[in-house]
Parts: sequence; C-alpha cells; structure tokens
Amino acid sequence: MAGEKPLTVATCTAPVNIAVIKYWGKRDEELILPINSSLSVTLHQDQLKATTTAAISRDFKEDRLWLNGEEADVGHPRLQSCLRELRRLARKRRGGSAGAAAPLSLAYKVHVASVNNFPTAAGLASSAAGYACLVHTLARLYGVEGELSEVARQGSGSACRSMLGGFVLWLMGERPDGKDSIAQQVAPETHWPELRVLILVVSAEKKPVGSTAGMQTSVDTSPLLKHRAEAVVPERMAQMIQFIQQRDFEGFGQLTMKDSNQFHATCLDTFPPIFYLNDVSRRIIALAHRFNAYHGKTKVAYTFDAGPNAVVFTLADTVDEFVEVVKCSFPPGSNGDQFLKGLPARPTSLSEELLSAVVLEPVPGAIQYIFLTKVRCGAGPEAGCPRGCCRRPEPIHAGELKRGWTPGLTACSGRKKLCLLGLE
Amino acid sequence: MAGEKPLTVATCTAPVNIAVIKYWGKRDEELILPINSSLSVTLHQDQLKATTTAAISRDFKEDRLWLNGEEADVGHPRLQSCLRELRRLARKRRGGSAGAAAPLSLAYKVHVASVNNFPTAAGLASSAAGYACLVHTLARLYGVEGELSEVARQGSGSACRSMLGGFVLWLMGERPDGKDSIAQQVAPETHWPELRVLILVVSAEKKPVGSTAGMQTSVDTSPLLKHRAEAVVPERMAQMIQFIQQRDFEGFGQLTMKDSNQFHATCLDTFPPIFYLNDVSRRIIALAHRFNAYHGKTKVAYTFDAGPNAVVFTLADTVDEFVEVVKCSFPPGSNGDQFLKGLPARPTSLSEELLSAVVLEPVPGAIQYIFLTKVRCGAGPEAGCPRGCCRRPEPIHAGELKRGWTPGLTACSGRKKLCLLGLE
Repeated sequence: MAGEKPLTVATCTAPVNIAVIKYWGKRDEELILPINSSLSVTLHQDQLKATTTAAISRDFKEDRLWLNGEEADVGHPRLQSCLRELRRLARKRRGGSAGAAAPLSLAYKVHVASVNNFPTAAGLASSAAGYACLVHTLARLYGVEGELSEVARQGSGSACRSMLGGFVLWLMGERPDGKDSIAQQVAPETHWPELRVLILVVSAEKKPVGSTAGMQTSVDTSPLLKHRAEAVVPERMAQMIQFIQQRDFEGFGQLTMKDSNQFHATCLDTFPPIFYLNDVSRRIIALAHRFNAYHGKTKVAYTFDAGPNAVVFTLADTVDEFVEVVKCSFPPGSNGDQFLKGLPARPTSLSEELLSAVVLEPVPGAIQYIFLTKVRCGAGPEAGCPRGCCRRPEPIHAGELKRGWTPGLTACSGRKKLCLLGLE
Repeated sequence: MAGEKPLTVATCTAPVNIAVIKYWGKRDEELILPINSSLSVTLHQDQLKATTTAAISRDFKEDRLWLNGEEADVGHPRLQSCLRELRRLARKRRGGSAGAAAPLSLAYKVHVASVNNFPTAAGLASSAAGYACLVHTLARLYGVEGELSEVARQGSGSACRSMLGGFVLWLMGERPDGKDSIAQQVAPETHWPELRVLILVVSAEKKPVGSTAGMQTSVDTSPLLKHRAEAVVPERMAQMIQFIQQRDFEGFGQLTMKDSNQFHATCLDTFPPIFYLNDVSRRIIALAHRFNAYHGKTKVAYTFDAGPNAVVFTLADTVDEFVEVVKCSFPPGSNGDQFLKGLPARPTSLSEELLSAVVLEPVPGAIQYIFLTKVRCGAGPEAGCPRGCCRRPEPIHAGELKRGWTPGLTACSGRKKLCLLGLE
C-alpha cells in the first residue's frame, strides 16, 4: 500500500456475509453498537460482491456518490461517519499532531462509485458489502492500514464482518465509544473446505421494512428480543464457535436454523410486526426439514436475513442432490438452463422414495434462480484478496482519466483506474 | 336440573372462545395444566357453536361417540378423563361414600353425538367448544352441578374458558393436582355491549400441525416461549384485565394484537418451526395497521389462533366501515351476497382518502367469508343460556326414541330429545 504517497484512485471489492448467529438491534444508534454479538460466514466474491472505486482530485468541487449508477446523497450521516473517521485516521497516520496541517490530498474532495452485482435491499446484506467496500477503498486511497472493522461498523453494523474472510465474529463490546465492538476471525476460509452455500433467490422485490428502521422498532417494542440478546445469544455463540471449530455440520446446521427462526420470531414480536419470510420462504423451510428427516440427519440448513431469500448451507457431497430437489420442488420456467448460477452442480437422478418423501406439491417459478458458492476471504483490493483466492473483478466500464471527471465520462489508466461503476 | 333423578337424554350447546392472552404450552400433559394463565372472550352461539347430545340406556352395549356425523374413537384418553371424572362427581354427589354402590344409571353405557357448525381444526378452537359442550351435556345427564371448568380443562385446555360467558380468565394454578387451574369470569357478557367480533375465514383447510403436538414441541424447544410464560404474560394479564374493566379499546386492542403476534413468534421459535399465519393472514395484519394508522387510533385489533383465520375485535361504530374495507381489500367472488354472515352491517361508502390510504393491491377471493358476532354467555343447556340471551339451537334431526337406538335411527321425545347430530 502506498503509505505516505496515497493513490488518487482506488478500486476494491467486498463480499457478502451471511450471519448464522443474527444481529438485530442496536444499543447505540449513532456508533452502531449492537445489543448482542453475532457470527457470520463470508461468501465467495465470484457470485456476490460490491465493487467500489473512489478518487480524489483537486478539481472535484464537492464530495459525490453514485450507487448502482444513480447519484445518491453523499451527506448520508453514516457515509459521512466513515469518511470523517478515515480522514482522521489518515491524518493521524501521517504523524500530524492535533494542530498539524493535513496533507493536501486530505482536503481534496472525493468521488465514490459503488455497484453490487446482486439486487440491493433484497435481504442479502447489500449494505454490509457496500460499506465494507467503501471503507477498504477509502483506506487504500488515503493510505490507512490496520483495524478497519470499527470504521466499517459505523457505516452498516454487519459491514464490519465483511472486512474479514471465513468465519467472523462481531464482538458486541462493552465500551460506550465502541472501540471494542470489532470483527474477529474465528476460523479462516480454508478451515472448512467442504462447506457450500446455496442462495435461493425468491424475490428481488425491495423489502417492505428496511433493517435499520425494523431493528429499532424491535428494540423499542419486542420483549422477546431483549431476552434473546441477554440470555439466549451468549450461550448460542459459545456453542456455534465450537461447532465451527469442530466442523460439526449437525450442530452448526441445527443452530443456524434455530437462530434464523428466532430472529424472525423477534420480528413478529415487534409492534407493528415485521414479516420478512413469505409463503415461498416457508415452503423452503418445510422442504429442508423433510430433506433432513428423510436422511435422518441435518444435511441442509437454511437461514434468512431481512428478506424472503433463503441461504442454505450444506456440504459438497450433498450439493448435487439438493439442487435437484430444489429444481423438482420449484420447477424453473424458461430459464431452466440458467437456473443454477455460480459453481456447477452435476445433474443427478433422485430415487422415487426420496421424491415421494420430500418433494410435495411443486410450485413452478417460485424460486427465480440459485447461486451456488463457497466460503472465502473478506474485503480487499480489486486485484484480488490478500491470499489470492478471489478472482479479479471485471471493470464495469473503463476509459481515459480526464480532468473534471463527471459520471458518464469515466476513465481508466492502467492499474490506477477510475471506473464509473454506474455505467453498465 | 334433575338432581337425584337424572335425565337419560340431554342436549347442550357451547360457544367458541377467542383468547386475547394466549395459552400455548402445558406443564402437565395429562391433567392439561398450562405454563401460563390465559384470557378469552366468549363468542355468541348464533354463529359458532358446538351442539352435543348424550344418552344413557341399559340397552347400550358400549360407550360410543360420533363427531360431525362420523363415528370416532370413544377410547380417546381425554374423552375418557372427562367421562371418568363426571361419573366420579355424580357418584360423589349422590352421597355415595367410597364403598357405596353407584346408582344403576352410572353403570349404563353412554352414546354421545357432537357437531360443530364451523370447520373443525381450522384454528377456531373447535375442541374448546366441543369439550365444553361434552362436559356440560354429560353433567346434565348425570345431574352434576358446580365447578365444571376443571373437568372441561382435562378434555381440551381452552375448553374450560368456554364454560363461562363474557371475559374469562383461565388461572394457571399452582397445585400439581390441577384443582386450582380453573376458569373465572373477569366481566360478564353484558359488560362491554359495543364490542363486536369479526371472523375473517381465510381457509378451512386442516391446519398442518395440531395444537396439542405443536405446543408440546414449543415447550421442548423454544427458549422464547419459556420467557414469555414466566416473565411476559403475568404483566400483560394484569394490564389486560384492567383494559377490559375500563372498556379501554385502545389498550385492549393493542395488547390483543401484541399477544397474538408473540404467540406466533414462539411458534416460529419452535424447532422445527410452526407456521399458522399465511400470506393472507399477513395481509390482514397489514390492513388492520393501515386502518388504525389512518384513523390515528386503534379501531380494529386482530388475533390469530392455531390457523390462518383472523378474528378482529372492533366497536359497533366501526363495523360498517371495516366490513366495507375488507370487502374492497378482498373482493368476494360469486358469493358476494353471502360474504357477510351473522349480524348485519350497513352498506357504506368509503372516502377516496381512506381507500387510497388503506386499500392497497386488492386480492380477490382471499377471504372466503366474514362472520360478524358479539360477546355472549358460556356453555349451557340446549333450551338457552342461563341468562336467556342465546337462541335455542335447531335440532339437526329428530324422531321417536327407540330402544336399542343406533345411529341412523334417532329419536326425539319432547324436551328430552335425542338428536343424532351426525345426520344432517
């Protein structure tokens, strides 16, 4: 990284993470300090990622932001928190005491463009990947290194977990200033190579209640959420860490399902109640339980975030069969050949016995498509993750860097490229 | 009542009750002792009731039971508990000490026929009305009087609440023998004459998980249910009794909705999770919240039992408008003229403002029909309730009483009639 000579342009990518012990509710709204610790699995970036390019220039008149091609409000308090915090860290890093003048580049305005390759606000933690990516990109731009999860947390709570790969714990912390509310890796992405993740995309509709507003209402109104945070999660967290360390899929899967259900239970206990699961989500849940009952053990485990899409954990040896079961239960429409995205699965034939026990009343078209992916590493520079396990992302748009850059006239110059990600 | 000279035939009816503080979970499976107290509203019998006829005869070879026209297993442990307990009370009442011979009629076999005028197992507490009715009918037959809710409770927990009218508390009790787990009236049916009850029948399908099995799984697996029973319900119960006594609809309605949501939350926290609400139920919930938000106060309050049908409490002055809102939101099919059953509502026109704020995306046919009813008195003899407020039920079938009575050849002799309710 550039250190004293910061880049003027940087592009990074960041992954989605899926919580298996859920975060729902803040004890401090501004610093984004949670009411309980949470634990997530970081997904491979091939299928689901945020990509962010940021540039600083003396020619920029003001800070500006583009999200998925649309200019967005750069004054958003959380974005401003991240920007302010990173500029402060940059100033500190450059040895400036409180009174010293900041290097020129820190006074320059910044342009940021970010794009997700998956539907925003569909309950796939898009803001987690987005803020992790923003923080990584700005840190690279400003030459900031070290513990950045605390900064990402101030953008979107669960973003702190996308800063790391593998199995990641977000410690709730105790301090009022949030300095101890940070992400820690419980196990690296190489720890459980057989683990596979299927994302069953039920609907790309925007969710009815955003998670920020939803969790605040839950904290204010749900007696069960308070009990969950205080009494249930601490015990579950210790169990979950042990299951992961031991690669115990039975324990990991059961607890993952229970914790997802409990999170949605606290949403229902909120007033007015919040529903993220729909009838298709419930069919997937019932299907998973029938599949496990047929096999006499936990072979698949579902979890749902703030939306109807299911994330299903399984092991490599079960993928082919379960993908086929999903296809039979939710027969694809005209997109049959593109129903499965991401990693491949081998076509397999299901026994009559399995079909009659597990596949009841198929609902054609209820699932749009499946992503098949794995566990991988966290937010990193565009060129790839620190461990080199993630593919370099494709630039969405590239061109010559121009002075007075505006969206629509985007530029790219070698490794230091400026991609206006809004223009696909 | 006949006292020492028991009737040989008796017919009674019993009402449905709708819990506003829910019962879910037993601490004693055999005696049916609950993990928390509950509180319900007894509905008028014109729309929803169970009707039971029981007869004893020296010619009967064995105890027999017909439910809704089908012969059923008379050996069901819960039915046997009620029968045994009532025969014991009859023996005791007739002054027999432990060693005394029972009067002849107590040794006779009994035939029982019961019918509900609403779908069984559709989440409308059919077993509550059914067992309340059975216990009342057998008590009348055997000349037993006094506290009978404890007997009804042993048939189906919530049946004890259908023994009384108005607003009924089922005290959980503390004793291991269940003698203090009984129903008590909090306020009579005359207490809140403006209260109206709308039952929105979403589906008459049999529910996927019966409540007996469901609540046992919840007790075994849901950490949130335990907390609800121990910490949440006692506080809510005190509040609910006060709201009812003060006829405070705002408080009553809000707490009714919250407690319904919390019950369903504990079902979702059960493993595997139990879902009784479906997408139509959720639309009704959202509709109620929009309706209340439009009016700036709680005008309607939903509650759901172990099924997708909604029960909506409201006051007389809101009925016409809300019925119209339901009709616009779920336009009836060909049964438009029979969409509203029970009490009448006046056709009313809705303002454009209300329509645009409350009626979003109508779903034709999603609600089959509405029952409109009121609060009334509990289980009682066929001729009417003790206070004479309920209409005498129509006999389903009548004929001459014959010796060697068998189903299909049923009989009726004046007031002491034997109706084979299975033959409609």
